Formats: sequence, structure tokens, C-alpha cells
Amino acid sequence: VAGAAAREKLAHARLYVLLTAAQCPAALDWTIAEAAAGGVGVVQLREKELPDRDLLERARNVRQWTRRAGVLFVVNDRPEIARLSEADGVHLGQDDLPVKDARRVLGPDALIGVSTHTIEQVRQAVLDGADYIGVGPTFPSKTKAFTDFPGLGFVRAVAAETALPAFALGGIGPENVGQVVAAGGRRVAVSSSVASAADPQRVARMLRAALDG
Amino acid sequence: VAGAAAREKLAHARLYVLLTAAQCPAALDWTIAEAAAGGVGVVQLREKELPDRDLLERARNVRQWTRRAGVLFVVNDRPEIARLSEADGVHLGQDDLPVKDARRVLGPDALIGVSTHTIEQVRQAVLDGADYIGVGPTFPSKTKAFTDFPGLGFVRAVAAETALPAFALGGIGPENVGQVVAAGGRRVAVSSSVASAADPQRVARMLRAALDG
Repeated sequence: VAGAAAREKLAHARLYVLLTAAQCPAALDWTIAEAAAGGVGVVQLREKELPDRDLLERARNVRQWTRRAGVLFVVNDRPEIARLSEADGVHLGQDDLPVKDARRVLGPDALIGVSTHTIEQVRQAVLDGADYIGVGPTFPSKTKAFTDFPGLGFVRAVAAETALPAFALGGIGPENVGQVVAAGGRRVAVSSSVASAADPQRVARMLRAALDG
Repeated sequence: VAGAAAREKLAHARLYVLLTAAQCPAALDWTIAEAAAGGVGVVQLREKELPDRDLLERARNVRQWTRRAGVLFVVNDRPEIARLSEADGVHLGQDDLPVKDARRVLGPDALIGVSTHTIEQVRQAVLDGADYIGVGPTFPSKTKAFTDFPGLGFVRAVAAETALPAFALGGIGPENVGQVVAAGGRRVAVSSSVASAADPQRVARMLRAALDG
């Protein structure tokens, strides 16, 4: 039942935010509450530098804050941290554990997302039983360095390829989300444009207006 | 039953080796076979730099090689990698997941070891239900940088404090293992002195002779 409820929420999620505490100008609980009020449906905790003990403690806090805000909670990279913090799922990069191994740690109810950068990776993620995919990078971003930019052409190709929830990702903000929508993207994931904003709720609302409009 | 057999093996293990592939001059499977032939009873895979996908693949290989050699296999830091590779257990540092959380990922049969640097950490590890402890650092080492050296006094204090299997660790080799034995240490863990040796079996035999003698 938890799995079905989470999948139902995911099916309706248009806006997904990756959070790193050091990137947020305010407290993480406030940022989560504001983002949720602005229409964010999924929060990913993305902490690459924390020792595991601190990461688990932060994940357990974020689990409480996201539950209160009524949004899905996904942990970056680490299925065992997702399990121990009772997150809704995990997000895996191409160098992280394969979906089937993460599934063995987390069980059938967990949401598993996969970052994809080519259409072959999209097909593999669908075959592996991913619940959603990240699609990018779309534009150059402050959060993560990439040398290749599959860009809007990739967003277009994914929209034609699969009905799996697909979040366009990478350098997306209110100024360019219209280009993603024009390319067929119906969902986006953002990091700094919401997390680092003085008014995360306002930025989230602007993004949602473009996606829903 | 698997748990009981592994605990029985641990009770008899005197020599424990931490392996990082990049530190071994030869192939990891050869190093494991030679170390086992020289009297090593536990192999820990310690890879801090590998992406998770490669780490899991390596752990699965080491699981095969340690099974063939008849020695215990423990994964550094990561209980989910230990579980997915069917390792005998996990070794946790003070910044890694707490024992009880690692136990939730791995189940009751898994061996869980904890690095300890103070007598308070030793007492906590016993309370937490650790199966063994690492005790150190004993001497300056090439593998890991430390500023504090609890040294031989700590080995002596641990021997007086607990009957839990305790492996003295840090810069130990054939040239100084006698000092560890004189301080009451009955088990040692080594890294470069065996892993980087041209003849790992010979070095392991020398260490075993000092520990058994």
C-alpha cells in the first residue's frame, strides 16, 4: 500500500528538487516546507561529502520534514541509507548500484530513479524496472560539471520513447523551463534554482506555472 | 548456521588483512590465496575510491576468492555492499553507520567489526553488540594518516577490558609484532606489510609465528 501510494504521488509529480544542505541559504526544513508549498512533489537529499553516520541522521530529519510537507523523499546514491531513514526511494547514477541490486536492499515498494544521459540508458532503465528517470543534463549547471550536453534534443527523444516519469535536469530555472516544455518535457528536476533561492516557494510556483500551463 | 560457523572461524582468527587492490603488487586473488596459506583468517576489502557499481563487482569477486581460500570476508564501511556480495560481515569506522543500523541492513548472522581508538569506544562497541573490534592505531602506518597514537598502552588496556576478539592495527609488521604480543595483543590486523609484500605468505607466516609462539 505504501508502494502504491508513493507511485500515485510520483505519477502526479511535476517538480522535483535536489537538496544539499550547504547549498541552502536557510534551514533545510524551511526550504522543504517552502518548496512543497510552491508545488514541489519530490525532494532528493544529495549529500556527497557527509560521513555515513551524519548522512543517516540528516536523512532521518529530512524524512520527518518531507512527511510533514506531504512530498516524496528520495536519497541520492545509497539504498541502505534510504532504507534506514524510511525514505520513499533512492536515486541512482550510472556508476551507482544497478537497479536490481538496489531493489534487493530496498524491497519492491521503494521508488527507484535512474540518471540517464543517452537513449540507450533510458531503455536500460525501463528494462531494469526503474520507477522514474532523470534526463539530462539539459543546460550547463552550477551543481554538477559535465562535458556533454544531450540538451533539449534528448528531452524530445525521451518524450517520444517512453511514458515512464521523466524529469529533465541540469541548469533548469524559470528563465529556460519554457524551452523544456516546448521540447515535450512535462516534469523537471532542479537544484540551485530553488534550493539557493531567497524565496524558494516563488521560484517553485513559477516553474509549476510553466509546466502546468 | 552460517552465523555460527563464521563466529567460530572468527574466534580462531589471529591474523586479519585489509586489502586495497591498488596497493597489491599482484592480482588480488593470488594475494588472498597466499595470505590464507600463510595463516590469515579474515580478509577485509577496503576500497575508498571506487564507484559503488565497481565496488560491488570487486566485492563479489573477493567473496569467491575468500570462499575458495576458506577465510572470512568483511567489507569496509558499507553494509549494503556486504549484503549484496554475500560477505560474512562489515567493518565500521566511528564515522560510519552505527552497529545497530548496520545490523538492520545485514541481519543477525553477519559479523560486525568496529574501529576503536579509545577505551570508551571499546565499551560502546561491546554494548552495541559488535562481533570484534579493531584497536589502534598502534604504530604510524603507510595506509592511513592519524594524529593520535593510542599505541601499545591501548592494546594493553583493551586486553584487560574485554574478551571480545580485538585486532591491534596500524603499522604492524614482523619487525614490531613482538611488542604487540608483549602488550597482551593476541590478534593483529595488517595492510601494507602483507598486501604489498613480494611474498605475502612468508610475511603472514612470520606474523603468525609471533602471535602463536
